[in-house]
Amino acid sequence: MTTSSRLAAGRPAPTGLRVVIVGLGEVDRIDAEADRVTGLLTDHGHRVTRRIAPRDEWGEGRFSADGLTPADLVVVLGGDGSILRTARWMGYDQVPVLGVNLGTLGFLADVSRDDVAASLDEIAAGRFRLVGHLLFECEVVRHDHVIHRQLGLNETSILAGPPFSMIEIRLFVDGDLATTYRADGLIVATPVGSTAYSLSAGGPIMRKDLDAFVFTPLSPHTLTNRPVVDSATRTYELVVPRPNAGSACVVDGRLASALEPGDVIRVRRAEPRFTLVETVRHGYYRTLREKLGWGGHLRGAEPVTRGKP
Amino acid sequence: MTTSSRLAAGRPAPTGLRVVIVGLGEVDRIDAEADRVTGLLTDHGHRVTRRIAPRDEWGEGRFSADGLTPADLVVVLGGDGSILRTARWMGYDQVPVLGVNLGTLGFLADVSRDDVAASLDEIAAGRFRLVGHLLFECEVVRHDHVIHRQLGLNETSILAGPPFSMIEIRLFVDGDLATTYRADGLIVATPVGSTAYSLSAGGPIMRKDLDAFVFTPLSPHTLTNRPVVDSATRTYELVVPRPNAGSACVVDGRLASALEPGDVIRVRRAEPRFTLVETVRHGYYRTLREKLGWGGHLRGAEPVTRGKP
Amino acid sequence: MTTSSRLAAGRPAPTGLRVVIVGLGEVDRIDAEADRVTGLLTDHGHRVTRRIAPRDEWGEGRFSADGLTPADLVVVLGGDGSILRTARWMGYDQVPVLGVNLGTLGFLADVSRDDVAASLDEIAAGRFRLVGHLLFECEVVRHDHVIHRQLGLNETSILAGPPFSMIEIRLFVDGDLATTYRADGLIVATPVGSTAYSLSAGGPIMRKDLDAFVFTPLSPHTLTNRPVVDSATRTYELVVPRPNAGSACVVDGRLASALEPGDVIRVRRAEPRFTLVETVRHGYYRTLREKLGWGGHLRGAEPVTRGKP
Amino acid sequence: MTTSSRLAAGRPAPTGLRVVIVGLGEVDRIDAEADRVTGLLTDHGHRVTRRIAPRDEWGEGRFSADGLTPADLVVVLGGDGSILRTARWMGYDQVPVLGVNLGTLGFLADVSRDDVAASLDEIAAGRFRLVGHLLFECEVVRHDHVIHRQLGLNETSILAGPPFSMIEIRLFVDGDLATTYRADGLIVATPVGSTAYSLSAGGPIMRKDLDAFVFTPLSPHTLTNRPVVDSATRTYELVVPRPNAGSACVVDGRLASALEPGDVIRVRRAEPRFTLVETVRHGYYRTLREKLGWGGHLRGAEPVTRGKP
Repeated sequence: MTTSSRLAAGRPAPTGLRVVIVGLGEVDRIDAEADRVTGLLTDHGHRVTRRIAPRDEWGEGRFSADGLTPADLVVVLGGDGSILRTARWMGYDQVPVLGVNLGTLGFLADVSRDDVAASLDEIAAGRFRLVGHLLFECEVVRHDHVIHRQLGLNETSILAGPPFSMIEIRLFVDGDLATTYRADGLIVATPVGSTAYSLSAGGPIMRKDLDAFVFTPLSPHTLTNRPVVDSATRTYELVVPRPNAGSACVVDGRLASALEPGDVIRVRRAEPRFTLVETVRHGYYRTLREKLGWGGHLRGAEPVTRGKP
Repeated sequence: MTTSSRLAAGRPAPTGLRVVIVGLGEVDRIDAEADRVTGLLTDHGHRVTRRIAPRDEWGEGRFSADGLTPADLVVVLGGDGSILRTARWMGYDQVPVLGVNLGTLGFLADVSRDDVAASLDEIAAGRFRLVGHLLFECEVVRHDHVIHRQLGLNETSILAGPPFSMIEIRLFVDGDLATTYRADGLIVATPVGSTAYSLSAGGPIMRKDLDAFVFTPLSPHTLTNRPVVDSATRTYELVVPRPNAGSACVVDGRLASALEPGDVIRVRRAEPRFTLVETVRHGYYRTLREKLGWGGHLRGAEPVTRGKP
Repeated sequence: MTTSSRLAAGRPAPTGLRVVIVGLGEVDRIDAEADRVTGLLTDHGHRVTRRIAPRDEWGEGRFSADGLTPADLVVVLGGDGSILRTARWMGYDQVPVLGVNLGTLGFLADVSRDDVAASLDEIAAGRFRLVGHLLFECEVVRHDHVIHRQLGLNETSILAGPPFSMIEIRLFVDGDLATTYRADGLIVATPVGSTAYSLSAGGPIMRKDLDAFVFTPLSPHTLTNRPVVDSATRTYELVVPRPNAGSACVVDGRLASALEPGDVIRVRRAEPRFTLVETVRHGYYRTLREKLGWGGHLRGAEPVTRGKP
Repeated sequence: MTTSSRLAAGRPAPTGLRVVIVGLGEVDRIDAEADRVTGLLTDHGHRVTRRIAPRDEWGEGRFSADGLTPADLVVVLGGDGSILRTARWMGYDQVPVLGVNLGTLGFLADVSRDDVAASLDEIAAGRFRLVGHLLFECEVVRHDHVIHRQLGLNETSILAGPPFSMIEIRLFVDGDLATTYRADGLIVATPVGSTAYSLSAGGPIMRKDLDAFVFTPLSPHTLTNRPVVDSATRTYELVVPRPNAGSACVVDGRLASALEPGDVIRVRRAEPRFTLVETVRHGYYRTLREKLGWGGHLRGAEPVTRGKP
C-alpha cells in the first residue's frame, strides 16, 4: 500500500522512524505546535524533519515529494484541507499520515491536539490500524493523447461553466455507454469525497473505507437521474461532446483542464492508497455525529418542530 | 381576523386589556415566570388571568375556550408546541398571541424571556403588527357525512400505517382530480407547518405569512412526485380508495381519524386566522438562521469540506 | 394587466381583433401551420399579421416590439421556449398569449394543434380566462448605478463559474439581511420557472398563478439551506462580495451580466404580468401529470419495485 | 455460492441439468409460456419440472423448498416480485436464477420472452456469468432470544406506525453505537433493494453487485441525517427504546414482527448469495436507463424546460 514506510499495522512501531511534520498556514502557530510534537516524537526515539510553509507559498507543484520521502510517517498539522494537499503532494509514493487538527474536528484530521501524545503511545504499542483510502487517477484525453494526469482524493467534477447552458455528459463504464446526463455537471466522488462537494449536491455519505465511487449529477434535467454508487474496480470515462466555452474538469476543487469537444475524462482507482493511521480512539460515526450534528443537541441540526399530542 | 380582541395593529394598545397567560408543563417554573410577566402587564394597566397546567392534564378537549375568551391578548409561556396547542384550543375564536419561549428560540415563540418587558413597551407604543397565519379546517367525510372536523395550524397527514403497503391517494382540487399519489402518505402543510414534518419529508420552507399549502408526498413511488405549492384559496380533497388496516388521518401530530375505504379528507383554509403579535424585534429570516444554523458557525450546520486550491 | 388588448376575460371576444402569429424555428413548417390558423382567425373576423423567423435570426434585441403591438392577442406557434422568448420580447407592453404547441405538450404551450379551432370558438364565446403570471424585473446595480435591467419569466440565477470555488451570496429582503448562502449559486424562480431550472436543483413545484418566488440554492455548503418560498410583493437583493472570475447573473438561461465584487442583483415583481389565455380545456395538474409522468403508466416514471406480500 | 447447482460460470452448461420453472400469477398464461420454455430446455437436453401457482395460493410458508432443490437452475417467469419471492423461498439453499419478464423489463427480470432462446444458447456455450447478490439475514431479538429470523433481498424497514409519533432508532455497528435517528423509520437496503423503497425515500442507487448496505432514514428530524452507505461485512443492530404501539419491523414489504421496547433488530449479510445468470445481453445501466427513463425521450422523464438563448 505504501512504498517506503516501515510502519506496520498492529505491530509496535520501531524506534528511529523517519517522521515528517507537515504544516500549512500560520507559520508561527504551526511552528509552536510542531515544537511540541517534535518533542513527543523525539521522546519515542524518532527522527523528525519539517515542511512548514505559509498557505500562499504552498502551491501545488512548488513542493516536490523529495522532501517527504523516504519517510515512515507524516504528521499533518492542520485540517482536512491540509491533509488533502499532502496526499496529492505525495503522489504515487504515499506514506501513512496521522492527521492532527489544530481547530475543529475533521473527517480526516480527527486527532485533537490533546490526543497527540496518547496517539503516539498507541502507535508505539502497536494499537493502531493503517486504513487505506481510495485515491483516484484522473486523466484528460484529447485526440487519443493524455494531456493531463493527476491523483485525487475527493472528487472529479465536470462543470458546465459559462455561458451556463446544460451540457451533455456521456458516462462509459468499462468501455460501455452507461448513460447520458444532461445537467450542470457531474461529480465522481470517493468515499472520503462523499462528505464534501457530492454531499452538497445531494449525494449519499459513503463510509471512508468503501471501495466505490458515487456519481452525483448537478441539477440534472431528468429528475430520475439520482446518485449512483458503483465499484471502484471499474474504469469510468466521461465524454462531453459539446462543452460550453467555459466547461472544465475540476479535481479536488482545483481546475484540472478546460474542456474541448470530444475530450475524454478517465477516472479510475489509483494504485497507491492514501493511508491514515487510526488508533482505537478513532470512530467514523463519532466524526459524522460531531460534524453533522447528528443525534446531538446542536440547535442548527434540530430544526424541526413536529406537533405532539 | 379575531373576534373579541381590542388590540389593533399599529395603534397604541389601550390600558385595561384582558390578558390571559397560558402555560403548559412544569407548573412551578411557569408560575414563577407568570408572576414576573403578570407584574409587567399590571404595570401597563392590564388585567391578567392564568391558565397554567401540567402537561398531562392539558389534554385536548379537557380545557374549553371559556377560560380564554373573551380576551384581548394571550401570552403563551412555552415553546412552539404550547402555542400550537393554544391555537387549537381557541378554535374559531382566535385571540392574538404573544409567544414567549422559556428555553430555545421557536419559529413561533420568538420572544425571549429577556425581551418580554421591551415587547410589552412596544405594544403599548403601537409599534407592533398583528400577523395572521393560515389555519386550516380538516374534515373527514364518510358516506357523505362529516364524521370529524377540527382546526389545525401545521399539517394534515394521510399515513399508510400497518401493514405498511403503499396506499393510493387521490388529490382533488376544487372538485377536479389533480393527481394520484402512490406513497407512504401525503402531508398537506401550512407555511407554519412547512418547517415541521413537511421539511423532514423534503418539502420547502414557506414564509409564515404566505397564503398557500404545500403537498409533500412520503416516499412516493413515482420519483417525479415532487412537493407542490398551491394556493390556500382552493379546496383540497384527499381520497384513499383502499386504505391499509392501519391507515389514518393525522392533524398536527395527533390522530384525527382512522380511514375506511372511500373516506374523503377535506382540507381548506379556515375562516379565523391564528394571529401573532410581532414587534420590530421580530425577524423571520433571523429565526431561520438561528433554528437551521444558516450562515452561522455552528458545527452541525457546516458539514462539508470542499477542497480548495 | 395588459395595455393594448381589447380581449376581456369572460366576455365574448369582439370581432376585428388584431392578432399576431409568432413563430420561431423551421419557417416552412410554421408557415404551413400559420396558414391554417390564419384561416381560422379570419373566419372569426380577426385581422392577422405574422412574425415568423428561423431560430438563428430571432435573437433577442433583433426584433423590436413594434411589430407586435398594438395588438389584442398573440398566438405563439411553438413550445415553451418560444413563449418565454415572446414574453421577454413584448417587454413592458404585454399582450395576451395563446400558446399552441407544435410538438409535445408544454407547461405554457398547452393547446395542441388539434385544439386550436375549438379554443378559438371558446374565446369567441367568452369561455376563457386571462391568467396573469408573475414577470420579474432583474437589475444589476454596480456602484449605485443600474448597469443592466431586464424582464424575466422563469428565473434569475447567480452562478459561481470558473474557477468554480463556492461563492458567498447575501440575500437581503426589503433591505434587511435575510441570510448568507455559500454555494455554487442561487436560483430565484417564479412559479412558471419552478418547473424549470429550480426543479432540477431540488426546488418545489409552485402552481403557475401563485404570487411568490422560490429561492433554491445550488449545492449549498450548509445542508439545512433548503429551498424557501417567499412572497413576490417583497424586493430581493443578492450581493456577491467576492465573486469568482467567471461568476455571472443569468436570466431565463441567458447571460445577463458578469459579476464584479459588490454588485447588487435586485429581483422584484414587474409591473406588467405575462398573460395566458386559458380556455376550459386547460388544466394545471393535467399538464403536470403528463409532463412529469405522474400517476401514469409511463415506464420512466414508475421506477420502483417495492416488495409485496 | 450455491449448494446444489452444477452450473459453473464461464463453462458450457452440461446437458441433463435439473431445471425448475417457477411461475406466480395467471396460471393459464404462465403455463403457455412454460410450455414454450420447456420445449427450449428439452431441446438442450435438460430435465424440467414446474412450480406454478396462482398468486393467492403462493403465500410464503405454503411452498417448501423441497420442490425446488436439488436443482441446477431455476427459471422464473414473471417480474421482479416473483423473483424476490423465489429467492426468499429458496432460503439457505440458493440455486441460480434466470429471470424472464412476461411484461415490462425488471431490474432482476431482465430477460425478455423473445430473448429466452438466445439466452439458453449462450448458457449452453458458456457465455454467461453467475452474479451473486447480497442476501441479508434479519433477526428480531427480544430479551436475548431470537424470536424471528428470515432472509431478505431488498430491505429491512423499521416503521413508526400508529399513533405516528417519531421514534428513536439507535444504530449499532459491530456493537458500537453509531448514531441515533429520530424519524418515521429507517430502511436498511441492499443494492438490489436500493432501487425499491429506499429510492423512494431519497436513497442512492447502488449497483447490484456491490457488497454494501444503505441506511435511508424516513423523514428524519435532523436534516443532516442523509443516507449512509456502509460495508455489508459489518453487523448492524437497530434498537427502538420506545416504539409506538404500532411500530414494526418489515422485511421486503412484509411484516416481520411488531416491536416492543428494547427489541433488537439485527441485520447482516447472509451466508448464501442470491445468484442470477447473466448472459452478455445483460446490462445494468441499460436497465436503469429503461426503468428510470434516463437519457431517453420518455415524456415523463424530461419534465424540465430550461430557457435557452
